[in-house]
Amino acid sequence: RRELNSEEMKLRTKYNISISAYDELRANIWKVQPYKNGRQWKFPGAFYFSLTVITTIGYGHSTPQTDSGKVFCMWYALVGIPLCLIMFQSVGERLNTFVTFLLKHTKKCLRLKNCEVSQTNLIMVATILSSFYLFTGAGVFTHFEDWSYLDAFYYCFITLTTIGFGDYVALQSNNALQDNPEYVTFSLIFILFGLTVISAAMNLLVLRFLTMNTEDEQRDELEAAA
Amino acid sequence: RRELNSEEMKLRTKYNISISAYDELRANIWKVQPYKNGRQWKFPGAFYFSLTVITTIGYGHSTPQTDSGKVFCMWYALVGIPLCLIMFQSVGERLNTFVTFLLKHTKKCLRLKNCEVSQTNLIMVATILSSFYLFTGAGVFTHFEDWSYLDAFYYCFITLTTIGFGDYVALQSNNALQDNPEYVTFSLIFILFGLTVISAAMNLLVLRFLTMNTEDEQRDELEAAA
Ligand SMILES: [K+]
Ligand SMILES: [K+]
Repeated sequence: RRELNSEEMKLRTKYNISISAYDELRANIWKVQPYKNGRQWKFPGAFYFSLTVITTIGYGHSTPQTDSGKVFCMWYALVGIPLCLIMFQSVGERLNTFVTFLLKHTKKCLRLKNCEVSQTNLIMVATILSSFYLFTGAGVFTHFEDWSYLDAFYYCFITLTTIGFGDYVALQSNNALQDNPEYVTFSLIFILFGLTVISAAMNLLVLRFLTMNTEDEQRDELEAAA
Repeated sequence: RRELNSEEMKLRTKYNISISAYDELRANIWKVQPYKNGRQWKFPGAFYFSLTVITTIGYGHSTPQTDSGKVFCMWYALVGIPLCLIMFQSVGERLNTFVTFLLKHTKKCLRLKNCEVSQTNLIMVATILSSFYLFTGAGVFTHFEDWSYLDAFYYCFITLTTIGFGDYVALQSNNALQDNPEYVTFSLIFILFGLTVISAAMNLLVLRFLTMNTEDEQRDELEAAA
């Protein structure tokens, strides 16, 4: 029961974080909107822009032009980026737990002798999933934009690593932001879920590195004490 | 002696990482150069571009135009970004240790009763240092570029959060990449050291969050066992 309670609290914390991040997103959208009335700053466009700020992708396809816009954008980034990072990390961690659970069950079903799921297993799964995700995404973007398959793959890669050059930006051609809500939804979810997968992979790699250091130190201390 | 040895090994590992990252940077620079012979792709410009890729700033002021350039850029990012992340994290960690040491000595000199350095102390120092760093950097960039102070501050902020919109990019006006090596050196070091400070701050925040979770779990386990 105790464990369940703690799980609930964790979930609630997570939910609260999402809610506050969303509220902030909303607030931003209405504040930034007035000074430019193009299609770029209607709700979906402003949402897209906010997303590129707090995920640190920063395509630069639309940027604040006024001084007050710049100041607000900086405050927004200051609060939004850590919130976003914590959200992605906590969801990524749960994704790892879920994949570990699935792998364990699969191994049990296959009646393998060693049912333990190692870090290397998880990293392999993350690599395969990420590649699959990139190739599928590239296919969809080739369909909706006038890009070659390589360009679409390049776009997905540059976006999900949060480099975001801005030489290829989705949702900019054919009035897509206004006329194609399904494509808009797909793009935003593609970015959000993709970043979660990357966070999960990074969580594995960084945690491995951190624990390696800590284990070294513990061993050193033990040997120094002996 | 054991501790010293381990410190040396750590330093060597760090050094190796830096060396391999640098070698890779070099290799990239010579590979990317041939297809465009402007000032943008001479050594400093190519170095600057590589830096924006592996730090995930990605201004997009210059991007690969050919298919092979794009493919190489993706491979480069795939290897370079984790290397860069680990390097910044490990240097940031050492920066934290160093600041803790300094704070402890200062407190001892001031003959304060409580000489312990808390996490909150460190976070406060990180905040003050970052603000100071941003304000100073903005001053220097105002001097070298034709930007207002707010624009320069906005540039520094957007760069060091690795958003990198690319609406303001240093080293692009007045032929600075070729004619002003001191300014080029300053900009590159400003970015590298700034990102280290941010990494150190993030290290504090994220580690605090991670340990919070782990402590919760340990307490839960203990209570479940009782
Ligand atoms: K970026
Ligand atoms: K960018």
